[in-house]
Amino acid sequence: MRLARSISELRALRTDLPEPVGFVPTMGFLHEGHLSLARRAHKECAAAVASIFVNPTQFSPTEDLAAYPRDLDRDLAMLESAGTDVVFAPTSDAEVYPPGYATWVTVGGITERLEGASRPTHFRGVATIVAKLFLLVRPQRAYFGQKDAQQALVIDRLIADLNFPIELVVAPTVREPDGLAMSSRNTYLSPVERRAAPALRRALDLAESLWQDGERSGAEIRSRLTALLRADPLARVDYVSVADPDTLEELETVGPRALVSLAVRIGKTRLIDNTVLPPGSPLLERRTSCS
Amino acid sequence: MRLARSISELRALRTDLPEPVGFVPTMGFLHEGHLSLARRAHKECAAAVASIFVNPTQFSPTEDLAAYPRDLDRDLAMLESAGTDVVFAPTSDAEVYPPGYATWVTVGGITERLEGASRPTHFRGVATIVAKLFLLVRPQRAYFGQKDAQQALVIDRLIADLNFPIELVVAPTVREPDGLAMSSRNTYLSPVERRAAPALRRALDLAESLWQDGERSGAEIRSRLTALLRADPLARVDYVSVADPDTLEELETVGPRALVSLAVRIGKTRLIDNTVLPPGSPLLERRTSCS
Repeated sequence: MRLARSISELRALRTDLPEPVGFVPTMGFLHEGHLSLARRAHKECAAAVASIFVNPTQFSPTEDLAAYPRDLDRDLAMLESAGTDVVFAPTSDAEVYPPGYATWVTVGGITERLEGASRPTHFRGVATIVAKLFLLVRPQRAYFGQKDAQQALVIDRLIADLNFPIELVVAPTVREPDGLAMSSRNTYLSPVERRAAPALRRALDLAESLWQDGERSGAEIRSRLTALLRADPLARVDYVSVADPDTLEELETVGPRALVSLAVRIGKTRLIDNTVLPPGSPLLERRTSCS
Repeated sequence: MRLARSISELRALRTDLPEPVGFVPTMGFLHEGHLSLARRAHKECAAAVASIFVNPTQFSPTEDLAAYPRDLDRDLAMLESAGTDVVFAPTSDAEVYPPGYATWVTVGGITERLEGASRPTHFRGVATIVAKLFLLVRPQRAYFGQKDAQQALVIDRLIADLNFPIELVVAPTVREPDGLAMSSRNTYLSPVERRAAPALRRALDLAESLWQDGERSGAEIRSRLTALLRADPLARVDYVSVADPDTLEELETVGPRALVSLAVRIGKTRLIDNTVLPPGSPLLERRTSCS
């Protein structure tokens, strides 16, 4: 495994990689979710590249940029074990956003809902850093986790709209044994909060069982999930959404597919999770797994 | 020369091109200015690609999108004579901006001044189409004319900020014998307007001679050029700018370099032109001509 600490080092290492290149962008402090993406990139592509960069432009001034957990040595060991060939871990924010930086990539429509509603500049930061990393790494395939479902939809739109010659692979959410979706932010949870956190997965299980029992009312599903989450005294519901996966518009009636997504604060930690109905459906309608 | 009328045709033709690829994006209705770029791409690169697309997103609803002159057959013959290998001329706007299109590239700062001040969404459209074309054509070099100086500065910023692996070449403005900068919009001018149009070049000549006589006051240069232009009854001055070429901020005192740029309406036709002081200086400070 080779480590690039600058853009010029990355460009030099990229030149020698066999194609197809698979790319896993991360903010570091890796967990099994990231590693499942890295292993898949290694298995399905001739070379696997990962990036580790806590992207400041996707945090708002009130968010946890400074506190975001970091452990580069541990991340590098984990990526090496997953078969990653090149890691891009820039030494500073200025390497990525030098003085005078002025260019932004925005995806409209779906970014105004859900995460975008409470984090108005978040997806501008995400789309911009991903566009930059795509241009630096020039992958044939990019791997994202379904845990951040709206992010995956934004990247799907970005790839299609700007004509990136990249296949997007959205991999299943990896969970702890009790159902909590893996997230670098889980480290913020106190022991008592950690015990409350699987309420998100239980709410998604309820959505799936309601659907299987024939429930098709978006309002009823939202109401039942909200009630389940509110039953936990540590949980504060930010949103419970039952939406069209293409537009993220809330559904009155669940049609052929629906994205059920949640954002819930457990103490000070904001957790998100989601599932697609019918249970087991892919997030993206067209085929996105590797050929 | 091969013609691609769709994105998929372009992708297929691009695969077979030797590198480096030189790219000349145009809105068609070509003139000698475009051809000087196409010839240079042909001479300096292993393959030359041109695009012909009247990009709707860089026109405001009140501008001349529908009236913009078009002549594809003539354009293709001209590009062939200039040694172009592949032309991308999509058959429809929807090929480039399909239904549901939602992604925009914005360059801040310099886009709010000069052309951007009177055309607020213009450079968003320019940056977006150029980013898309760069991703489709994947050139090693891109050729733009200095006549649209602010556009060249925006593309320079776009390339640097999004990490496009592209060398920007800004080629000198090509002029009619009487000094009028070549522009597809010159075709709008009536005979009497056409005779008034070289006033722009005379104003730039005045700026150069003032500078050579030691004049360094931005206000004085602006004032003298404005007076010259206003002397023509057909001319209405939109702006006369003496600005820092890096920031486009108006200069009180002309320092090591200044961009003198003009926008003037002759009748209903809005013309732009510019020169860099000291006379003969490049628009971009760092070296951008081909190695």
